[in-house]
Amino acid sequence: MIKVGIVGGTGYTGVELLRLLAQHPQVDLLAITSRKEDGMAVAEMFPSLRGHVSIAFSEPAKAPLTDCDVVFFATPHGVAMAQAPELLAAGVRLIDLAADFRLRDTAEFERWYKMPHSCPDILAEAVYGLPEVNRAAIRSARVVGMPGCYPTSVQLGLMPVLEPSTAHADPLVDPLSIIADCKSGVSGGGRKAEVHTLLAEASDNFKAYGVSGHRHWPEIRQGLCAIAGRPVNLVFTPHLVPMIRGIHSTIYARLTPAGLATDLQALYEARFASERFVDVMPAGSTPDTRSVRASNMARIAVHRPPDSDLLMVLVVEDNLVKGASGQAVQAMNLMFGLPEEMGLTQIPILP
Amino acid sequence: MIKVGIVGGTGYTGVELLRLLAQHPQVDLLAITSRKEDGMAVAEMFPSLRGHVSIAFSEPAKAPLTDCDVVFFATPHGVAMAQAPELLAAGVRLIDLAADFRLRDTAEFERWYKMPHSCPDILAEAVYGLPEVNRAAIRSARVVGMPGCYPTSVQLGLMPVLEPSTAHADPLVDPLSIIADCKSGVSGGGRKAEVHTLLAEASDNFKAYGVSGHRHWPEIRQGLCAIAGRPVNLVFTPHLVPMIRGIHSTIYARLTPAGLATDLQALYEARFASERFVDVMPAGSTPDTRSVRASNMARIAVHRPPDSDLLMVLVVEDNLVKGASGQAVQAMNLMFGLPEEMGLTQIPILP
Amino acid sequence: MIKVGIVGGTGYTGVELLRLLAQHPQVDLLAITSRKEDGMAVAEMFPSLRGHVSIAFSEPAKAPLTDCDVVFFATPHGVAMAQAPELLAAGVRLIDLAADFRLRDTAEFERWYKMPHSCPDILAEAVYGLPEVNRAAIRSARVVGMPGCYPTSVQLGLMPVLEPSTAHADPLVDPLSIIADCKSGVSGGGRKAEVHTLLAEASDNFKAYGVSGHRHWPEIRQGLCAIAGRPVNLVFTPHLVPMIRGIHSTIYARLTPAGLATDLQALYEARFASERFVDVMPAGSTPDTRSVRASNMARIAVHRPPDSDLLMVLVVEDNLVKGASGQAVQAMNLMFGLPEEMGLTQIPILP
Amino acid sequence: MIKVGIVGGTGYTGVELLRLLAQHPQVDLLAITSRKEDGMAVAEMFPSLRGHVSIAFSEPAKAPLTDCDVVFFATPHGVAMAQAPELLAAGVRLIDLAADFRLRDTAEFERWYKMPHSCPDILAEAVYGLPEVNRAAIRSARVVGMPGCYPTSVQLGLMPVLEPSTAHADPLVDPLSIIADCKSGVSGGGRKAEVHTLLAEASDNFKAYGVSGHRHWPEIRQGLCAIAGRPVNLVFTPHLVPMIRGIHSTIYARLTPAGLATDLQALYEARFASERFVDVMPAGSTPDTRSVRASNMARIAVHRPPDSDLLMVLVVEDNLVKGASGQAVQAMNLMFGLPEEMGLTQIPILP
Repeated sequence: MIKVGIVGGTGYTGVELLRLLAQHPQVDLLAITSRKEDGMAVAEMFPSLRGHVSIAFSEPAKAPLTDCDVVFFATPHGVAMAQAPELLAAGVRLIDLAADFRLRDTAEFERWYKMPHSCPDILAEAVYGLPEVNRAAIRSARVVGMPGCYPTSVQLGLMPVLEPSTAHADPLVDPLSIIADCKSGVSGGGRKAEVHTLLAEASDNFKAYGVSGHRHWPEIRQGLCAIAGRPVNLVFTPHLVPMIRGIHSTIYARLTPAGLATDLQALYEARFASERFVDVMPAGSTPDTRSVRASNMARIAVHRPPDSDLLMVLVVEDNLVKGASGQAVQAMNLMFGLPEEMGLTQIPILP
Repeated sequence: MIKVGIVGGTGYTGVELLRLLAQHPQVDLLAITSRKEDGMAVAEMFPSLRGHVSIAFSEPAKAPLTDCDVVFFATPHGVAMAQAPELLAAGVRLIDLAADFRLRDTAEFERWYKMPHSCPDILAEAVYGLPEVNRAAIRSARVVGMPGCYPTSVQLGLMPVLEPSTAHADPLVDPLSIIADCKSGVSGGGRKAEVHTLLAEASDNFKAYGVSGHRHWPEIRQGLCAIAGRPVNLVFTPHLVPMIRGIHSTIYARLTPAGLATDLQALYEARFASERFVDVMPAGSTPDTRSVRASNMARIAVHRPPDSDLLMVLVVEDNLVKGASGQAVQAMNLMFGLPEEMGLTQIPILP
Repeated sequence: MIKVGIVGGTGYTGVELLRLLAQHPQVDLLAITSRKEDGMAVAEMFPSLRGHVSIAFSEPAKAPLTDCDVVFFATPHGVAMAQAPELLAAGVRLIDLAADFRLRDTAEFERWYKMPHSCPDILAEAVYGLPEVNRAAIRSARVVGMPGCYPTSVQLGLMPVLEPSTAHADPLVDPLSIIADCKSGVSGGGRKAEVHTLLAEASDNFKAYGVSGHRHWPEIRQGLCAIAGRPVNLVFTPHLVPMIRGIHSTIYARLTPAGLATDLQALYEARFASERFVDVMPAGSTPDTRSVRASNMARIAVHRPPDSDLLMVLVVEDNLVKGASGQAVQAMNLMFGLPEEMGLTQIPILP
Repeated sequence: MIKVGIVGGTGYTGVELLRLLAQHPQVDLLAITSRKEDGMAVAEMFPSLRGHVSIAFSEPAKAPLTDCDVVFFATPHGVAMAQAPELLAAGVRLIDLAADFRLRDTAEFERWYKMPHSCPDILAEAVYGLPEVNRAAIRSARVVGMPGCYPTSVQLGLMPVLEPSTAHADPLVDPLSIIADCKSGVSGGGRKAEVHTLLAEASDNFKAYGVSGHRHWPEIRQGLCAIAGRPVNLVFTPHLVPMIRGIHSTIYARLTPAGLATDLQALYEARFASERFVDVMPAGSTPDTRSVRASNMARIAVHRPPDSDLLMVLVVEDNLVKGASGQAVQAMNLMFGLPEEMGLTQIPILP
């Protein structure tokens, strides 16, 4: 059994981690911290967990985090890097769901997150936790920085056409032509009391936001550059959908002559054939976000719009599962030598 | 392994059965019928099941239903009773999610469902599938008529105060004073194309319906009479809530002097202490429907409104799980000697 | 033209007042105050008002409130009573949408609102602003305390059977038997950032709340007693519906022999025949909340549940219009001798 | 007073026409047809219209359509062209909300709508009813084909950069680089009973549809070519949003050197300065669909995504008002010499 701790379990990624870990056959949940809710039973705050999670929140100082094999951080940005040195010194491995270990460049981190990075040395060894790209490195990592929800969907959607390949010497898409028009349910904004995500504000409504620069933009760009091994740029437009869970990324890129000559459906199917959590849909499909609700699957459909030289890729995921807590459990499974899908085989909830 | 067939798997109770049975460790899904979708892969109609259900719909005549140990009917009313004689003759047990085997009185059935009952003899042996009431009878039943979604919630909510008891000689509530003001998500109406349940009609809206007489009313009354062993009457008002899943029943009954003298919280806790799928909430709670979303739990809170001699009971359940398919799997587990909770331990989805 | 001021225009009742007053042919909007948003154009905070409202928020000290003919308070409880003496001294009339002038009994006010009442003398002259009950008094009032959203619907729904009448000497319902099972959209909770009304929390969910005592309970009781001229009691259960606007009250009361002998449909139709904003639906109707969305109408349906001696009344209103700002404009029209429906004839928005 | 008839008033554009026309000071509603609902009072089908619309549906043969000054067609495609010759012969003017008079090229019409065009001669004189482009022609038109909901938003959004101008000799955007990533509420699909727009299917869900070719694509292309006076092409991707009303179009186009040198915010503000129903938002805005809910406004925001040579335009409209019935009333006002905004000044509903 893996001894697991969670720092900051009162948000949506925290409660989703609890749902997944409480059902995981190899996990022993040792501690969950919350400064504010010290002493409150987890199941009192989240009645959905009654009968499944028996521990209470404890304040960080009292929690036996250093006795854990791995600690998940489901916290605001900046918390994981503050506690990382002590935990690593105690031999604990770290999985951060916030942004502390996502961006390789501390200047970029500081620009977007408005705080200095307190442990560049740990950042240097941290692994970006996208299993479909970094599986081997995750297995042996001490620190994993989990991808953001939007970045997971966009990177999965473009991986097959950006990766260098022996099959095609030339790039398949113009790496500077990418547009990611992304739509997310409101749980992506977290469980903070804010006016703009009140039901009376966000329901029966749709809007773009963050168009002048969203924190996931540099992360996506970094990830795509790493995948392509060359400069990649993109326009990234997030939108808020009046639904609880789900991300739908509609991705456009201009095909090169090599790309125009490629059977893209076959390329995608081949690329993800052995990926347990990426499902390439039949040609012509338009996946619903609900087809992955509450599951760790991403589903992808590949399209060629009529009268156009564009590739269009549709990607759906549950932002709280494959886009956050499920992928974090997937990373944990890799780190501890367990079957990658252990505890992650839930069937999506429909309707 | 239990060999299972499903008749009529294209509605919401059907797809929910598929979700639950596909994850059930002792179930081998042999056949699923649909006259209209013969040959279509189940996972093509329901992409959420891709990778989990590999069989296709087949038309009833071709489906190996008589090879099954048990067949679920997730069909319109009238289908199960038509096929029951042949299946029973072949030694197959039946679990009907429609109304064919709910009402004991064929005249009552015919009045509410506008069709004659074709097999009163089978009805006579059929067991009403509410495990918390009829557990022993379900174990040995050949035919089980599953309760409706509303009736499940109202019967669970009133069971402790209506059951005759050695602890209290007098009734605890006036059995003729009951009001069940019930609210349901739209999936309770099924997956039929109808104008009034379109998102553009039912969203951002709330209304009562069926107030002059809903089919679940005689069923609730029959069930409460059976529980109480005396005449019980109630006013039943269903309402449509703009949400997908969930039932919330707000039940009122006038307390008798014996009831007024009883510790009702303790009574409810004791009554359901050993029930795996009924959770009595702490005093003062107001349960959310989402606290049971996609799970087989019912949660109950017991209240005494101020300045009043009424008992108020709040009951929440997922209408598609405890109110339909989950409870049907619970019944199957009982019928085949499996642990009652097998395949039904999913944690509710929150948010 | 009536010179109008609004104190506290950044909440939902405030912005709804703005929508209605900006279209009112006899209103000149002089000032709107907000301590926090001093200097911000109203249309910057609420883009829906671009081109319709040109003024900016100003802090209370700078706003020319004493130049107004009438000032609306769309504020938290306690603000109106603090400013009332100064405004009244300046000859300004007051319409309070909060609770400062609802409860006649200051002890009751202090019990439910946890603050002392600072001007019992003004309270003594204040009129409860339900036009269908207090029309004449409102016309000449200097201070009007507008009813809460739930109380409006419950009082309208019971008025015909509680009012003393020459037509029937005996009461029509048992005044101690009333249950008001009420359901409200989330805008009723105001535009405050709170976790439990986030879309991710309140959407696809239903629950009761405030069951041990809601502030509208004493107000409803006071109103019903005043209407009946005798003691009335009720159980009041509010519920939260995942929709933006709308209240649906399902009201039960036990009919007396006199009530059982009465043509209730005719009684309701006669009582409201000359009421512009109360619509008695045809017998058998179940009104949708959306049938009054964004309008000042209340719609009422009268039912006799089968096999029962209960009266059941269904009432729908838009909580922000007839339940708040629309009714406040209706009161203003009365106070200034204008046609009661002026500026209030918008057709409900459907779908 | 203008004598008005409506053919096909039982769908969403029909009931929205009724809401707008019932409040229009110069309209006398003479007849509304429905083959199926002959004799049913309009207000019985749509209780929101009780007290506002007193006529009943009548079957087409009985309706005094030839006595009207203008007839609106809120029907499926193909109905208007069948009745046009007779009505025109009687001197009646026609406003079609369906597609019969949108596409100039009958071959294109037949390709997309799968029916022959029965009156190419009338099509030849018909005017495309987008007032911001064709105001003068609409004034004198006998037949107006109203734009589709998506086409209205995309054409308004690109008009300023595609129109030939004396101010800039060179084009501002590459007319072959356009992507319109559009999102619509479900009322855009009409009031037909279909499974995929049931609340239980479409709620808490997001998906693209029609990506291999949507009927609005040739219409948008035709409109943009007409505006630009040169070939224009675009990729058009519609998506379904779980909300009732509203369209949000996110439009991308590559700026030419001339476009890069242009103050685009100023260009848009100047272009629409005198347009009553197009509101250019302040720089940096991201308009909500709800900011135009139930109103005839379109709001536009102009953006330059960082590190990119793209123009991004965000356009919101209410698909049933500016995208359909409101714009049709706007056209009627033009055709009959009335102020263009008459009957269309409703303030959007928020929240």
